[in-house]
Amino acid sequence: MKRRIGILTGGGDAPGLNAVIRAVALTARNKYGWEVVGIREGFDGLMHGASTVPLPKGRVRDLLARGGTILGAVNRGNPFSHTVIAPDGSEQVVDVSDQALQRIHDLDLDALVAAGGDGTMAIAQSLVAMGAKIVGVPKTIDNDLAMTDVTFGFDTAILTATEALDKLQTTAESHHRIMIMEVMGRDAGWIALYSGIAGGADAILIPEIPFDIDKVAAKMETTRIGRRGYGLVVVAEGAAMLGGDQHYYIGDKGSAAGRLGGVGYLVGNLLADKLDADVRVTVLGHLQRGGQPTPRDRLLATQFGHAAVDLIAQEKWGYMVALRGNDIVPVLMTEAIRHLKAVDPAGDMVRMARDLGISFGT
Amino acid sequence: MKRRIGILTGGGDAPGLNAVIRAVALTARNKYGWEVVGIREGFDGLMHGASTVPLPKGRVRDLLARGGTILGAVNRGNPFSHTVIAPDGSEQVVDVSDQALQRIHDLDLDALVAAGGDGTMAIAQSLVAMGAKIVGVPKTIDNDLAMTDVTFGFDTAILTATEALDKLQTTAESHHRIMIMEVMGRDAGWIALYSGIAGGADAILIPEIPFDIDKVAAKMETTRIGRRGYGLVVVAEGAAMLGGDQHYYIGDKGSAAGRLGGVGYLVGNLLADKLDADVRVTVLGHLQRGGQPTPRDRLLATQFGHAAVDLIAQEKWGYMVALRGNDIVPVLMTEAIRHLKAVDPAGDMVRMARDLGISFGT
Amino acid sequence: MKRRIGILTGGGDAPGLNAVIRAVALTARNKYGWEVVGIREGFDGLMHGASTVPLPKGRVRDLLARGGTILGAVNRGNPFSHTVIAPDGSEQVVDVSDQALQRIHDLDLDALVAAGGDGTMAIAQSLVAMGAKIVGVPKTIDNDLAMTDVTFGFDTAILTATEALDKLQTTAESHHRIMIMEVMGRDAGWIALYSGIAGGADAILIPEIPFDIDKVAAKMETTRIGRRGYGLVVVAEGAAMLGGDQHYYIGDKGSAAGRLGGVGYLVGNLLADKLDADVRVTVLGHLQRGGQPTPRDRLLATQFGHAAVDLIAQEKWGYMVALRGNDIVPVLMTEAIRHLKAVDPAGDMVRMARDLGISFGT
Amino acid sequence: MKRRIGILTGGGDAPGLNAVIRAVALTARNKYGWEVVGIREGFDGLMHGASTVPLPKGRVRDLLARGGTILGAVNRGNPFSHTVIAPDGSEQVVDVSDQALQRIHDLDLDALVAAGGDGTMAIAQSLVAMGAKIVGVPKTIDNDLAMTDVTFGFDTAILTATEALDKLQTTAESHHRIMIMEVMGRDAGWIALYSGIAGGADAILIPEIPFDIDKVAAKMETTRIGRRGYGLVVVAEGAAMLGGDQHYYIGDKGSAAGRLGGVGYLVGNLLADKLDADVRVTVLGHLQRGGQPTPRDRLLATQFGHAAVDLIAQEKWGYMVALRGNDIVPVLMTEAIRHLKAVDPAGDMVRMARDLGISFGT
Repeated sequence: MKRRIGILTGGGDAPGLNAVIRAVALTARNKYGWEVVGIREGFDGLMHGASTVPLPKGRVRDLLARGGTILGAVNRGNPFSHTVIAPDGSEQVVDVSDQALQRIHDLDLDALVAAGGDGTMAIAQSLVAMGAKIVGVPKTIDNDLAMTDVTFGFDTAILTATEALDKLQTTAESHHRIMIMEVMGRDAGWIALYSGIAGGADAILIPEIPFDIDKVAAKMETTRIGRRGYGLVVVAEGAAMLGGDQHYYIGDKGSAAGRLGGVGYLVGNLLADKLDADVRVTVLGHLQRGGQPTPRDRLLATQFGHAAVDLIAQEKWGYMVALRGNDIVPVLMTEAIRHLKAVDPAGDMVRMARDLGISFGT
Repeated sequence: MKRRIGILTGGGDAPGLNAVIRAVALTARNKYGWEVVGIREGFDGLMHGASTVPLPKGRVRDLLARGGTILGAVNRGNPFSHTVIAPDGSEQVVDVSDQALQRIHDLDLDALVAAGGDGTMAIAQSLVAMGAKIVGVPKTIDNDLAMTDVTFGFDTAILTATEALDKLQTTAESHHRIMIMEVMGRDAGWIALYSGIAGGADAILIPEIPFDIDKVAAKMETTRIGRRGYGLVVVAEGAAMLGGDQHYYIGDKGSAAGRLGGVGYLVGNLLADKLDADVRVTVLGHLQRGGQPTPRDRLLATQFGHAAVDLIAQEKWGYMVALRGNDIVPVLMTEAIRHLKAVDPAGDMVRMARDLGISFGT
Repeated sequence: MKRRIGILTGGGDAPGLNAVIRAVALTARNKYGWEVVGIREGFDGLMHGASTVPLPKGRVRDLLARGGTILGAVNRGNPFSHTVIAPDGSEQVVDVSDQALQRIHDLDLDALVAAGGDGTMAIAQSLVAMGAKIVGVPKTIDNDLAMTDVTFGFDTAILTATEALDKLQTTAESHHRIMIMEVMGRDAGWIALYSGIAGGADAILIPEIPFDIDKVAAKMETTRIGRRGYGLVVVAEGAAMLGGDQHYYIGDKGSAAGRLGGVGYLVGNLLADKLDADVRVTVLGHLQRGGQPTPRDRLLATQFGHAAVDLIAQEKWGYMVALRGNDIVPVLMTEAIRHLKAVDPAGDMVRMARDLGISFGT
Repeated sequence: MKRRIGILTGGGDAPGLNAVIRAVALTARNKYGWEVVGIREGFDGLMHGASTVPLPKGRVRDLLARGGTILGAVNRGNPFSHTVIAPDGSEQVVDVSDQALQRIHDLDLDALVAAGGDGTMAIAQSLVAMGAKIVGVPKTIDNDLAMTDVTFGFDTAILTATEALDKLQTTAESHHRIMIMEVMGRDAGWIALYSGIAGGADAILIPEIPFDIDKVAAKMETTRIGRRGYGLVVVAEGAAMLGGDQHYYIGDKGSAAGRLGGVGYLVGNLLADKLDADVRVTVLGHLQRGGQPTPRDRLLATQFGHAAVDLIAQEKWGYMVALRGNDIVPVLMTEAIRHLKAVDPAGDMVRMARDLGISFGT
């Protein structure tokens, strides 16, 4: 059956999104003979009639190694709770999901691939419940989605964070400093855990294991003697301090720029005070989301895009692709949204890290 | 029980060997309180009384990101078939395995970690059969060991090969050339397959799928038109041409330097002739084995080293560590040696590559 | 004449310091047959009798590509104004420069190479005035030393900053954001200027050209339309805003960790307010000082180390090496300290940047 | 005066060509208000009526970091000696330069920027002599153009070669091998010299200093003992052996693929024979020409493109831009073509390399 399918990307940036777009376009065309169009700006663009982008072979050829998404992605725009300005000037939240459905129809799309995080999957799932033909590609750089072993973007984030640790280490060593590096991970500490082990950190602080700042200070004291005077601490942005105010705002709490930062500076200041040490804090921030995807992320994104087109051929609406061991499998979006994958404080990786001498501040 | 354990590395170089050494030393010391010594030059060094290296914490601290092995590794030296010069000047092959056993005893080692490829595992296994207390860490950059999903060094090789493809692509595109890149993989095409997909190759030639050079030429002809005149071909060094002399020696077949190269030049010359095209050949060679390990390889090597020490604690002599899904598991060395893990010509990855439009020359 | 010379490193970290140490050791030994010892922790270590490090060939072999300094470096310790605790518990500043001279004598050093910034050069110069035999190697990652075209570490900092901009750009483009990146440069905007041009920034804010935040906002407004909605701003940490409070402290002004950041957040907050835009701020911080030096920095550091030994052979005490065009030349330390090399607001590079469409906020 | 100018790229690939195109387009538009069109496939495309490419801001925005040239480049196509097939089937060489002039007129171009090597400059110069309004941007990755201190692409080539050396070193060290790396440099040894020093080579063989293979072998013998058994040799492809057949062809001399390689394998085979050592040869080849330009090359390419547009405004036909110290200056193309810039065997850089213990095989 000749089909015309659409693809949109939603939520935060992740290296590999463009590789998904490329794989969807190539697979649909080569394997099934379908036409593919890109929809700009995610579900928000879909609702508001953003322009579409034809995706012939020549258009997607160079996307494999390119960071970001050529379709744009926004962190807003839920058709089920859409904010509009009423005639009296007040803001009102309305359900415009039928407009989204209508728009899919108007664009003459037989099916839609939605690549995004849990927010995007939740919208997609609700639209599927209304009859839309949507399959999903999961995206979360934090690696906290339960139904898939890993998602694209995570490997690139680990590489960026580990290379940053490598750089900080030479300065830490030369200047006998304690270097704190804050990485992404609001709810799960995967990036901190993996980059911390790979980058030779002395302490790793993650949301799943609340830390005692005095234990961290004690570890640093030991480490500084053993390592000729320096120490490396990786802190996930969602790390929780026992008995403490969890965050340390930079700038104006209410402003856009003011939101960045937090626990890294908190840990830095407390260690500086407790140890009378030379402490420096680095917040990796958006560097972790950008740049060219690693080969592994290019491969996984390609596998996901390819499998999503197969899901459409199988008419498995409401399913998204996932990685299980070495296999790409379909899982229900509803399942994927429900569960968060957290680091197991008693699991193999944490236990190994402790055996190597890494402290979790406990 | 207080123990003194040894570690040696054998076979070809692979990024991550030093991270294994570090993990063994740290785990033995921190978790079990054991002493660790390094034995230089693998089993060859063990037999010949090569000097040992104490491995305290300070000695292994900087090894995580360092390529190669500080213990040295040689591709020769089997105690079971050792070549000696007889008094009459003739070469004789003798079994000196009892010397190796004696040397382990003389060094006062309670157990030994042997990190290496199938040759190293075979020797280790035979020594275990004679009563030696050895556990193994598998190492093969080609990823062709059956009992483990993946080994360290493979991810770094993929990164090096993919980055090289990225570089070749810009020149191929600017000059409308066909670029051939030969990568490692004597018996299995994993590196070619993974880097070829991740690097956007038009054709991938691997040992598991004998190729028809006319089919490759036909693909290139199509590609050159579609891609504004260029094409990328990745060739595993063990790729087999249908009906052809398999290799194309460079230099003197018998000499050390003359062994390099082969099928890449063969494919290049044939395509140049058949297509009257501008063709260039690049042989990646040893670049794939060197350099800093990727974070993923540092992590896997660390997991392997850590688990090997646990195997010693459990006295599982003759076992080696392996990766299965997300778990590190022990497998019998005898099992690991017996099976080669080849690319499945009908498997998911090859099928996906074909769907994307990649040719395997068939 | 057989000599025994010492080398010390002072001030902030810079990629290439280890390459200087290597070049000094190899040149002294190979060319002149001299012995070389390293003095730990700069002039502070010299005064306090820090241990010395013999530097034979085998010790310096692997230093070329290694970041930081194996000798350690501290940002304190001036023998001419040394703080001591008096018997009554009060702090006193005393001149202990004669102790430094004595220590050079006690270590049996015929001459000393001091690698460091203007602080280190100032101390060295004063000691030379007292009779010490010292030559200098200039080090400033900010590239603000007047007497040399460029110093090692600068090229590596530019690479790190440009790669970071490349990463931020993909996210900026995908999310239609304004990304602010704060780089080093307290008194001179070289890193911001060079990385900004090389990384495709839309605006570059440097100390030499005070900026009007409304002009920056106006540029961003134009840029966002032209570039499908995103913009990149590079801000030197010493950039000065017209009519504004110059800095924006993060955390506690008095604490160690609290010192980081500043004008980047200030610009970010103001732009977010003025444009109602999605703005993100990244502070590169210590990432710019760390890591492996680029080939160019390895080469320049090697040239400097080599030339410094020649200066000793010529007994040019009080001179330091410098780069002029393609030549390494000796300059008086006193000259070098006196002048700062600032970006010329009317110079070729700024003019070119303006021609390309880059705004300086004026 | 409102103008419409063209730009073409010729000769071999070099990282930075796209940055030149971008700088020409942005400068022409922003500074002068001119229109810019790209001409595909160099002078060959100009003659044969290849399609032109409009270069508005949106088209050139992403070119700064992109390798290769979007305009294509060919190594053939001289209007002054053009090969045509005569009616009788024979090949004839004819002068079609008037067609090239006519084509410039037909395209309504007021002036032309020609970016390329000495071949491209020679054609441009001859056309200028016939009345064409052309300015030049020099491009030679080998850095062998006399009138400019350096050209773009060279820094990227050095980075690629040095990173490759870093990788080979870990294997060389682990396996006690001699590693040979052949780099570009047919007539001048700049890449070998700079990457060899920056990468810690033990011997560097360049065209300017004919080498004695026995001297190289003797150096390797010494080095292997001192360095625990390994050595690194960098060989320029044009290196000349004293008393020897200069080249060592790989494959069929006459074929396209067969041209690659040469002296690297020759040196490798001879050292393997003379030393009974384990020797491996790597030919970097086209990896050196590809990939993203370094920040320094992006900057220089941008400066060149910007200055070329200024040359047009000044109507300096027959001039090309060049780097002298820190200045961009105009030089006559005729001057630039005449002189090759070779490494001075008695110059500072070679002398320093010798002082560090590097052998040139003499």
